[in-house]
Amino acid sequence: MVNENEWFLEPMESKGTLFGLKLAGQRLHQEQSEFQQIEIYATETFGKLMVIDGCVMLTDRDNFLYHEMLTHPALCLHPDPRRVLIIGGGDCGTLREVLRHPQVESAVQVDIDERVTRLAEIHFPQLCDSNDDPRAQLLFDDGIAYVRNAPDAAFDLIIVDSTDPVGPAEGLFNRAFYAQCHRALAADGILVQQSESPLLHLDLIQDVHASMRGEGFAETCLVNFPQPVYPSGWWSATLAGKSRLRREADPARVAALSAQTRYFNAQTMQAGLAVPNFVAEALKTD
Amino acid sequence: MVNENEWFLEPMESKGTLFGLKLAGQRLHQEQSEFQQIEIYATETFGKLMVIDGCVMLTDRDNFLYHEMLTHPALCLHPDPRRVLIIGGGDCGTLREVLRHPQVESAVQVDIDERVTRLAEIHFPQLCDSNDDPRAQLLFDDGIAYVRNAPDAAFDLIIVDSTDPVGPAEGLFNRAFYAQCHRALAADGILVQQSESPLLHLDLIQDVHASMRGEGFAETCLVNFPQPVYPSGWWSATLAGKSRLRREADPARVAALSAQTRYFNAQTMQAGLAVPNFVAEALKTD
Repeated sequence: MVNENEWFLEPMESKGTLFGLKLAGQRLHQEQSEFQQIEIYATETFGKLMVIDGCVMLTDRDNFLYHEMLTHPALCLHPDPRRVLIIGGGDCGTLREVLRHPQVESAVQVDIDERVTRLAEIHFPQLCDSNDDPRAQLLFDDGIAYVRNAPDAAFDLIIVDSTDPVGPAEGLFNRAFYAQCHRALAADGILVQQSESPLLHLDLIQDVHASMRGEGFAETCLVNFPQPVYPSGWWSATLAGKSRLRREADPARVAALSAQTRYFNAQTMQAGLAVPNFVAEALKTD
Repeated sequence: MVNENEWFLEPMESKGTLFGLKLAGQRLHQEQSEFQQIEIYATETFGKLMVIDGCVMLTDRDNFLYHEMLTHPALCLHPDPRRVLIIGGGDCGTLREVLRHPQVESAVQVDIDERVTRLAEIHFPQLCDSNDDPRAQLLFDDGIAYVRNAPDAAFDLIIVDSTDPVGPAEGLFNRAFYAQCHRALAADGILVQQSESPLLHLDLIQDVHASMRGEGFAETCLVNFPQPVYPSGWWSATLAGKSRLRREADPARVAALSAQTRYFNAQTMQAGLAVPNFVAEALKTD
């Protein structure tokens, strides 16, 4: 919502927190797509802002944190990430980061709402830089059905880059979906899911980890990173390995990527994997 | 400010961001002390909240992140931290964390505003747990004058736990103060200063680091950590070493502390020291 002083405000009543960005001028775009309400604003200090169903999705200024940390740790920990599936991710920022890895031979992005991508192409063109890469395939379809219909062991990584677990994304946070992802991943495959705030959503994170392990994943781990425009400013991705997850990546691959990134490097990758005491306590499995 | 829907809102006009917490009931306390306006609220999900001059100072729920990361990395990197001076820190949370280190023989806290401490004793009693420790000395005085009048080499650590660099804290962010800190520190002493958000205040951080080095500190480094109730949710402390700073701490000391902390441990200490690419670029000295 926008208040009388021209702030975009996102109150999160269930968690008791609110975040706002100062706007610059009138709203640039608004539409009700087949699936959700999409708005685009210009802000005073964060560049352009995309909002879906009242929730901040991304800004020019800080989306690099989320997109780099959702992708690079998982891709670097996988020994040979050739076939990547992205569920959601319609703004194409995750796809762009995935395609920085020369090992990747194909990256399929399946977002249910084509309008998100069409608006990203107009308002966030830098995120769509790699949409014409011959390795990329953009589909606009139901990601849950896509995984269900995929052959066994078809992917090395599945990255779930979704909105919060309400509305269209709800079916991406449950055991039936995790079981299908497990089946569609190769033996050393990794499922990556954006998993909300370590401070505000620790119960959700616990549930995600337990559900993934319950559906056969050998191991889960949390990657945490700053994301100022999301609730609490602190966000996470959950990695689930069909085999045990490595914790160290090939230094040459990490170094080659670091030359292209703004947050990610060998140090911040390990920082992402660091587990605070209160999180370790919540996620301990023994 | 409090809006009609009972949110406490902190707009930061200069950075174009806004943070809010849902309140529970009426304001618990308000006063204009000799130095600043102090308010205490109860929130729905973050426990009690202290506000100074309209800015969130701390909440029950997440102050452990700030207090642990402002203190433990610096204390652990110092080979023998016996004499500690805290400038500001009137809520006593920093003092409590400092006194967890058995090496510490004396910890002097100098806050200009006694009312902050008196209100913390009432509303945040857990932060004041260690105020009666025989090693602790609480003074209510001008911290800048205190450092100026201190003997040479009187302290192993000086920790500046201040409000933002406007108003009473402005004199804590300049070269004259850093020069006095340098003089009052022993040869292997470390100055620690809360240094705002890596995303929003990178220019300030650059200036702090350059000023500290300009006043004779051998090396500076940034410690970064999540702090949801501060602007951007991502915060930092700057460490300035009179000698070169170690990057590895004694594992036994870190492990002993980790048994008492909620965020800090060997992994998150290194996570705090990890430098994102865009920060490294801004702080490079060669």
